[in-house]
Amino acid sequence: MDAISLKAGSLSRLLGQWRGADSADAAYRLLARALRLLILDGRVGLGVRLPGERELAEVLGVSRTTLTAAYGQLRDEGYLLSRRGSGSVTHLPGGRAAAGEIADIGEGDSFIDWTAAALPAPAGLWQAYEEALRRLPAWLSGIGYEALGLPELREAIAHDYARRGCPTRPEQIIVTSGAQNGLTLALRALTGPGDRVAVDHPTYHNALGAILRNSCQPVPISLPETGWDLEAMEAIFRQTGPRLAYLLPDFHNPTGRLMDAASRQALVAIAARTRTPLLIDETMAGTGFGSPMPAPVAAHDPEGHLVLSLGSVAKRHWGGLRVGWIRASEQRIAELGRLRAILDMATPVLEQLAVTVLFERESGMGDRPAMLRARCEKLIALLGEALPHWRVPMPEGGLALWAELPHPEASALAAMAQTLGLRVAPGPRFAADGGFERFLRLPFTLPEPDLARAVERLAQAEARLHRRPFRDSESPLRLIEAERVI
Amino acid sequence: MDAISLKAGSLSRLLGQWRGADSADAAYRLLARALRLLILDGRVGLGVRLPGERELAEVLGVSRTTLTAAYGQLRDEGYLLSRRGSGSVTHLPGGRAAAGEIADIGEGDSFIDWTAAALPAPAGLWQAYEEALRRLPAWLSGIGYEALGLPELREAIAHDYARRGCPTRPEQIIVTSGAQNGLTLALRALTGPGDRVAVDHPTYHNALGAILRNSCQPVPISLPETGWDLEAMEAIFRQTGPRLAYLLPDFHNPTGRLMDAASRQALVAIAARTRTPLLIDETMAGTGFGSPMPAPVAAHDPEGHLVLSLGSVAKRHWGGLRVGWIRASEQRIAELGRLRAILDMATPVLEQLAVTVLFERESGMGDRPAMLRARCEKLIALLGEALPHWRVPMPEGGLALWAELPHPEASALAAMAQTLGLRVAPGPRFAADGGFERFLRLPFTLPEPDLARAVERLAQAEARLHRRPFRDSESPLRLIEAERVI
Repeated sequence: MDAISLKAGSLSRLLGQWRGADSADAAYRLLARALRLLILDGRVGLGVRLPGERELAEVLGVSRTTLTAAYGQLRDEGYLLSRRGSGSVTHLPGGRAAAGEIADIGEGDSFIDWTAAALPAPAGLWQAYEEALRRLPAWLSGIGYEALGLPELREAIAHDYARRGCPTRPEQIIVTSGAQNGLTLALRALTGPGDRVAVDHPTYHNALGAILRNSCQPVPISLPETGWDLEAMEAIFRQTGPRLAYLLPDFHNPTGRLMDAASRQALVAIAARTRTPLLIDETMAGTGFGSPMPAPVAAHDPEGHLVLSLGSVAKRHWGGLRVGWIRASEQRIAELGRLRAILDMATPVLEQLAVTVLFERESGMGDRPAMLRARCEKLIALLGEALPHWRVPMPEGGLALWAELPHPEASALAAMAQTLGLRVAPGPRFAADGGFERFLRLPFTLPEPDLARAVERLAQAEARLHRRPFRDSESPLRLIEAERVI
Repeated sequence: MDAISLKAGSLSRLLGQWRGADSADAAYRLLARALRLLILDGRVGLGVRLPGERELAEVLGVSRTTLTAAYGQLRDEGYLLSRRGSGSVTHLPGGRAAAGEIADIGEGDSFIDWTAAALPAPAGLWQAYEEALRRLPAWLSGIGYEALGLPELREAIAHDYARRGCPTRPEQIIVTSGAQNGLTLALRALTGPGDRVAVDHPTYHNALGAILRNSCQPVPISLPETGWDLEAMEAIFRQTGPRLAYLLPDFHNPTGRLMDAASRQALVAIAARTRTPLLIDETMAGTGFGSPMPAPVAAHDPEGHLVLSLGSVAKRHWGGLRVGWIRASEQRIAELGRLRAILDMATPVLEQLAVTVLFERESGMGDRPAMLRARCEKLIALLGEALPHWRVPMPEGGLALWAELPHPEASALAAMAQTLGLRVAPGPRFAADGGFERFLRLPFTLPEPDLARAVERLAQAEARLHRRPFRDSESPLRLIEAERVI
């Protein structure tokens, strides 16, 4: 594929205050350092063509000489490759790390597994199953295969969209066996081998895995400090012509950010202008801290011709309840129903009845938002004490923090933590092509005593790492690679 | 791909008594007719290279002239293509029909849907769910994701294999969301785009769909009159080097045949000699009529290095209970567990608990085998009365008959039946590349009064078809194509 070009304006926004407070250092070295961090963090993807020197110098307000020197240093260090006729393209010294596959958790030991952003079942779930069991006999005389889902559940999901500001007919809904199953189904329907799929960067690692295993190529769109850079997104859509864009506007995993209403509208307009179907993952929609939610992205494309919405009850109720859905046009839903037969036939009837009950009962999220906010604040406080030099912004929702380390050493830190009985997901797990080495995803879903112990071990790991830099020969990195992250 | 060569011995076995009782017709015309039927029925696949004239003449005991004339007629009619240096290759006049995708059933009308080989839930299923609900609280404090399945269910499945003569450790089992989900998972793990997958021919249509949608190429292995032609299978394995063979030795779908113990042993030996992994679909294993079952194919490869077994409770209990499994080597199971995260994460906890209860309670199949045999015999009797000129052999098990028509008109007949309010699955649904036009799959799972009405409509459809041959212009063939078959 041709390199994606990053516009000078977008890069400038990503760079932010690159000069920092102490400008004792030469400008070119400061600029090179800031660019290097963007590449290491994955905020500028690999294989991306940086703007021309003259153009960028102008936007940044520095001399052409400064820029030439900065690019030159990055080239010497292996962070930029010069290609004849295609300018300077980003690169990692020593090659690129592949987006890892995610393995299962080893059996019980004294480890703290801090990789799962998932909660135990809430009160009332058992009762929902009990009520579902009462309704089951009506279905036992049938053969049990409902490719599109039980009519009453499709109705309930459609009603929930309407309640959230997005009028929906039941015919626009297919029930899936969770959101990951829905993602697989949508990828099967919309993409073929070799197709490009645009993704937020960082993004949900199991989505990256599904895209890669579907023989597609992820096209990363870097997230800026806050929100989304829609200008860059449109440029990348135009440059790469992805078959599909997979985006997480509802408490983005792993950063926890929420796309505002105006951006949602603008996003759908971009999709329409560039004819790029959007697969909007709303799995995290139910994990807010109580602030009002903007309407679903599909509200700006109510017929669902361009916007496919992917939902699930795993995060707002329980992961052991494997029910999700896709909302799209009726025609698309019928197509997905046909494909369904060769993927997994249907979703279990009793599970669907239980989720129907949960939708009927739902009158808001109860005390869940307050509980999530409290746990989140608690973890931030614990980290502020034990690791005050880390930057841990308060997310707008979700189940995890996206912690920023002062040094690009997340993988080494995770490996060291493993030797201290702590599993944690380093930033590169959320990267299409390496990077994010200055980030860790830290779920706040563990019980508070476990959170305290986990933070303690993490601080210990950092101290050891800095006392005695981690050497590959003693590294349990393969173990880390074999971990499962939820 | 190079054409597959059919050996003279195999073709001779497929031809059987090709001369028939009345040998008034010239031998070459009888032979041409028999070969044409094999091609139309899909028992000899398309693109297959027939044996040389001299060799086949010798095996059949006919003159070289007879053989040259027979091949010549087939060439004139478009059933054979001559390729320089590669002999005579089978073909269909007017191109090949693609293996259709299967759609969902239209909403309730007065149609009889005779496409689903599936039963309502048996007695005791509700009670199993009730008991599962009692066991659920132990799991509600966890996050609910069990990529490999609940330990007690893996144990119960392993125990069931041991009981059936195939010692198995729980670590050799992964629980899936039904057999179709297991098939998708296995294809993801073992194959890549463009790989060949050998299949029985005919075979289960949703397996064909999964293989095609996984960008793989099915390699059909024709089934002889009875049993399996293992000699032909080995030759095809050697010629085409498939990445995997997907086979249905337990009450094969759609023909209902059962592979005997000696053939199972020989099959595994062939797999070992040709290094072809076997994916053995045991979905139908619980649908026998009461005769003793040979041990699972995996009994001849207990460690599961070459044999992957695919099971499900859909047919022996209920399709609305979406639980299946794969048995293989521990290493393979761990690999499948890793891949699982990007396909559908895990199987619902409550479903797994219900199946655990069913395994614990199972003391044989109760009166199910006798009920299935009675329904099967009833349908054969009904067909014998209404359509005495059809050939309807008694299967050894399964949920459907594989009825043989006197003329290659199954698709037209199914289309005509549709106009009379009957949906039925014509033979080509079970073909990799067209063919089986003389076959219909007729499930005996409908209640007896429905079976009688269905047979009546089918006979009516045939009468109309012969009175006034079906014309494409009035054909609801597209509707037929959009049907779902289970």
